[in-house]
Amino acid sequence: MALSETRDTIVLSLGFPALERVPHAMMREAITEVVAASGPAAFFYAPSEGLSTFRDALAGLMSTRGASLSADEILVTSGSHQALDLVARLFLEPGDTVVVESPTYLGALQLFRAARARVVSVALDEQGMRTDHLEAALTRCSPKFIYTLPTFQNPAGRLMSLERRQRLLDLAYRFRVPVVEDDIYSDLWYGQPPPPSLKALDPHGYVLHLGSFSKILAPGLRVGWIAAARPILRRLVQVKQISDLQAPTLGQMVVERLVRTRRFVEHAAAARREYARRRDAMAQALERHARPWAEWSVPEGGFYVWCRIAAPVSATTLAAEAAERGVSVLPGSVCLAQDVTDTYVRLSFSFAPARDIEEGIERLAKAVRRAAGRARPGVGPVDSTRPMV
Amino acid sequence: MALSETRDTIVLSLGFPALERVPHAMMREAITEVVAASGPAAFFYAPSEGLSTFRDALAGLMSTRGASLSADEILVTSGSHQALDLVARLFLEPGDTVVVESPTYLGALQLFRAARARVVSVALDEQGMRTDHLEAALTRCSPKFIYTLPTFQNPAGRLMSLERRQRLLDLAYRFRVPVVEDDIYSDLWYGQPPPPSLKALDPHGYVLHLGSFSKILAPGLRVGWIAAARPILRRLVQVKQISDLQAPTLGQMVVERLVRTRRFVEHAAAARREYARRRDAMAQALERHARPWAEWSVPEGGFYVWCRIAAPVSATTLAAEAAERGVSVLPGSVCLAQDVTDTYVRLSFSFAPARDIEEGIERLAKAVRRAAGRARPGVGPVDSTRPMV
Repeated sequence: MALSETRDTIVLSLGFPALERVPHAMMREAITEVVAASGPAAFFYAPSEGLSTFRDALAGLMSTRGASLSADEILVTSGSHQALDLVARLFLEPGDTVVVESPTYLGALQLFRAARARVVSVALDEQGMRTDHLEAALTRCSPKFIYTLPTFQNPAGRLMSLERRQRLLDLAYRFRVPVVEDDIYSDLWYGQPPPPSLKALDPHGYVLHLGSFSKILAPGLRVGWIAAARPILRRLVQVKQISDLQAPTLGQMVVERLVRTRRFVEHAAAARREYARRRDAMAQALERHARPWAEWSVPEGGFYVWCRIAAPVSATTLAAEAAERGVSVLPGSVCLAQDVTDTYVRLSFSFAPARDIEEGIERLAKAVRRAAGRARPGVGPVDSTRPMV
Repeated sequence: MALSETRDTIVLSLGFPALERVPHAMMREAITEVVAASGPAAFFYAPSEGLSTFRDALAGLMSTRGASLSADEILVTSGSHQALDLVARLFLEPGDTVVVESPTYLGALQLFRAARARVVSVALDEQGMRTDHLEAALTRCSPKFIYTLPTFQNPAGRLMSLERRQRLLDLAYRFRVPVVEDDIYSDLWYGQPPPPSLKALDPHGYVLHLGSFSKILAPGLRVGWIAAARPILRRLVQVKQISDLQAPTLGQMVVERLVRTRRFVEHAAAARREYARRRDAMAQALERHARPWAEWSVPEGGFYVWCRIAAPVSATTLAAEAAERGVSVLPGSVCLAQDVTDTYVRLSFSFAPARDIEEGIERLAKAVRRAAGRARPGVGPVDSTRPMV
């Protein structure tokens, strides 16, 4: 296909779920049921901590993932981004330190910077956060919390092993540092289900667990939650009340209905099948078009391939060149607390349909060739023993 | 009726709209239309500033109220409470000063206290904020902004006169202080429509105008907005993004549909008729049962009667006694930045049906008699020349 024929950009840059897979008919049906059952209450005030029956349903959902909780350990939030903002507002003063993974969620970095926190990075490898590096960091600084995405990490796609999870918790207990577990991708596994969440492995109440329905169900609902030990949760409820009184009522009722009637479980299974197809399409396209100039590993879940550019071009330059050729990718440097390297791009396979993904990677390959002048021989998939950044 | 027969508390304490008047059938119908028109996009991400078509509709709504604005001067928020939080996050550092009315919205006081701001109060009278006192305050301190509810004030029910509005703006310009106008009750007028908003009177971009559909339509939607000059608005959008990315998408689409199809205008007219009935019911009940022991004035709009207790009992004691007798009222001291007096209660006529309001005031009268030991002669409606607190 000639470039001039390509009108539309193929979007591999955004962490959006698939628009056409958002179950709008199921949602409309659930809304009709909720309004029939609750009448005006579906549009009325709800408690700042969330509707008690919904919190109960969320506790049930978490128990299916191995975390035994009660409703009063759960706060309903306007998405997991707000959940993290509430945590930051409760824990952070200007100048305080936070430990993050390198790379990490761009929105978290923006949020911690806005809070004027000092951000300390700990490298990832194929097993997730390097807990040896974490131990060294905790010896040097006293962070207010450790922020981690252990399950299908954004942007690196990594799955933290069970051993590392245990080790991370041991360090948290030893240094008495809370752990904020951003767990919004754990429903999106394409092989085996992931190991238990940090929250499920934590008998001591150190973990604040952030969940969301944005990726698995519908981002426009803005329904997320925090699960935390009661004394922390009670303070988070106060911060929520100060921030925006409460999460919207209808969204809570709708998600509760979907969770309680197994429609959520069935939708999640269908979503996994679709995203597995897209993941496979990207893996095949990379194999076909990117082996000479890139290093990557295929994730077992989530939305992202973290890709090292092994060609003489910066990721930022490549992203600009790729945009001109009709494919958008995210320069990885925006996911770094310290902008020390510009050799990674994040490729998302969640938003573009499978048929577009191959075309997108092909366009990216052309962009690399153009930007680098010529393709260099690459070194194949990432060496799993090497830290990522 | 014997007290033992009274099972349910009559709620005169809460600033809630009437539950049974929330138009749930109209909302469900609008949702069906929106989902039919937009499909999955109704549940997908929207821009942090809000959907452009909805911002356009809000600009149109404000132009019907005399404020000529364009869509890029409007930020959609999760209710007006979040709007105020975003303003506080943008403007306030710990130790900064804010000027408020005395009394003022309880939630604003909580928010400013959480921001560790210094709160300076300016008295109200029957014409709204005492601008002579404001001038004195601005001479003494340099606040980051003036927070005012000029139209059917919460909790005092006052309507700021046009002359006072102009005078307030003149002072804002002279002292170069932004004005935050909390305008969530202006649709709820029961005689004449209110004078133009401060925003409509402000050619210089000093006013940040907070609006909401919570009182007039449905609080559980959490749909509000800020209208402000573009340079301020752009910074508020960044704070919104840090806070929770965006307001829920479906709620924006639904309200837009109602606003554009005149269903909102018709609903607002019906709501005004209903609340006028409740306001009248409360005015008559107070006339009948409270003249010996209370002073009040009947508001021309909004939800509240601010009532001075002219009996030898504190408002807090009275509220506790009233709760035991099956009626809840709000002790006015929680609406004061400095807890200097305990002689007012806020009576809300919005939530209880008209038939319950008389019974509620009768119970309150019994509570006064019991708490005070005996009724004292009162002095009738408030002297309008006297500052309220």
